[in-house]
Amino acid sequence: MNEFELIGRLAKSLPTNETVVVGAGDDCAVIDLGLPDRLILFKADAVVENIHFTAETPPEKIGYKALARCLSDVAAMAGAPNAALITLGLPKKFDAARVEKIYAGLNALARAHNVAIAGGETTTNPEGIFISIALLGTVARDKCVLRSGAKVGDAIFVTGELGGSIEGRHLDFEPRLTEARWLAENFRPHAMIDLSDGLAGDLRHILKASHVGAELLGRAIPISRTAKLASKAEGSAKPPLLAALTDGEDFELLFTVASRESVPLLDAWKAQFPTLKLSCIGKIIAGEGITIRDKDGVRPLTAHGHVHFT
Amino acid sequence: MNEFELIGRLAKSLPTNETVVVGAGDDCAVIDLGLPDRLILFKADAVVENIHFTAETPPEKIGYKALARCLSDVAAMAGAPNAALITLGLPKKFDAARVEKIYAGLNALARAHNVAIAGGETTTNPEGIFISIALLGTVARDKCVLRSGAKVGDAIFVTGELGGSIEGRHLDFEPRLTEARWLAENFRPHAMIDLSDGLAGDLRHILKASHVGAELLGRAIPISRTAKLASKAEGSAKPPLLAALTDGEDFELLFTVASRESVPLLDAWKAQFPTLKLSCIGKIIAGEGITIRDKDGVRPLTAHGHVHFT
Repeated sequence: MNEFELIGRLAKSLPTNETVVVGAGDDCAVIDLGLPDRLILFKADAVVENIHFTAETPPEKIGYKALARCLSDVAAMAGAPNAALITLGLPKKFDAARVEKIYAGLNALARAHNVAIAGGETTTNPEGIFISIALLGTVARDKCVLRSGAKVGDAIFVTGELGGSIEGRHLDFEPRLTEARWLAENFRPHAMIDLSDGLAGDLRHILKASHVGAELLGRAIPISRTAKLASKAEGSAKPPLLAALTDGEDFELLFTVASRESVPLLDAWKAQFPTLKLSCIGKIIAGEGITIRDKDGVRPLTAHGHVHFT
Repeated sequence: MNEFELIGRLAKSLPTNETVVVGAGDDCAVIDLGLPDRLILFKADAVVENIHFTAETPPEKIGYKALARCLSDVAAMAGAPNAALITLGLPKKFDAARVEKIYAGLNALARAHNVAIAGGETTTNPEGIFISIALLGTVARDKCVLRSGAKVGDAIFVTGELGGSIEGRHLDFEPRLTEARWLAENFRPHAMIDLSDGLAGDLRHILKASHVGAELLGRAIPISRTAKLASKAEGSAKPPLLAALTDGEDFELLFTVASRESVPLLDAWKAQFPTLKLSCIGKIIAGEGITIRDKDGVRPLTAHGHVHFT
């Protein structure tokens, strides 16, 4: 059994109660505690040494990334973050100055978004540091955007430029909190997710949750300069479009809106966020899975975000 | 710099905001999101392989313990738990059946207290499993009990019997949720904590937060049968009273009430919880630190819960 099969099995039998609006399977859990106008967003995630960062990663960026990942999940629900708890796993011998710098990066990002660090725990983790973050936020009752609302005919949008995040952006990306809230206040996004697994993989999460398919327009997919440069490097086997489709940790927003909103949205976005690209990359169609249209025709993408380029 | 010094430094510069009623330094963070009658309790904690459990620990008990620790912290605020998120660190090679059993133990405890498991994440942890839990709860605005409210003259109470938890009870203790809520609804506990570090260490947390001292009555401290038996074992260097004062992970409640409430409380408790001992073990005094009174007089306990027995 691999990790994904295990998660699938575990998710089937989780206890729930009357306050859970959305449980496992979206960017955040959504809890209704009876606030008149708002729902609670609840998220937890961890970064682990030698998996998400190494001894060479600047420690401020480790802390920044640990919190920014969770903030990006709150953004994907069009919510606002409020308070976080930090559980820190430390080897028996640890470098206190490094840990203080991790916290400095984390605290600076928290302050920028008025997020309180309301406590946490330290524990021992024999072989390396882990940083587990729990985040509490809220979202207006009528503005919460799930993965499951995409409708046939919707236009598919993505912010920013994709691919090559591993070259550095995964450590200092800006969670799209402001943009997501503006979007939900001014338009009606049907479904939204943040890009952590890669465009193709995360789009598939929306499609499965919404029981629809998608047709992407190859030339419309925004490819980062980093991914383009990397594809020209000696020995590179990854064409830039493949990088944009499958590289993880872009932490941009992927969302769908009714097609009639596309032009007004693009105009309003350009006025509101002149330095952040917004691209319409395709449409939601009946059926399942992803097809991609380019100059040679329409081809299906295989499972898990991988596509066979010939 | 050791772990405690590091935590002290980190805690000084944590970001806060207008919703934080209690941040780092109590059993849970307390957040005010504007619910008319309730405050939010927010807790995170982790258990780590080879620190909190081993390959020999029955996996159901690993999951039980991971969640029960957090529930015990909600109990210490007189709150009710509502929803949890599980972040699971797994080695690259993991035993899926073991993980399913960990979840079975965790789920059973969650169901017993109507706690939803509202999602989580899995990640890779190279050398062993960790289970990080984030827990959301609520407490009535006028019933939340902090560590900081102990007053000179208060009687000090503890539930259950202390010491020797490592022999097994640390894996299947019952979080005192019902008892703590009953206590806050029927009496006025001034300060409360759950026993995780040991009676002396955790009492010291109350004393420091409340700027008071304590005098314990040695013969009133309830000592578990396990601790008594262990002290008789060959080679044992730990007298039973020392075990009750310093052994960790009892997960009983330690609290103070005005002395005039002591007798009514003991009577009502016996009627309400006939199978769970409640002991008055001393009183809050002016000053700082802990003294212990026994047949030989009054002696101070040294820092961090250790006491020199001669």
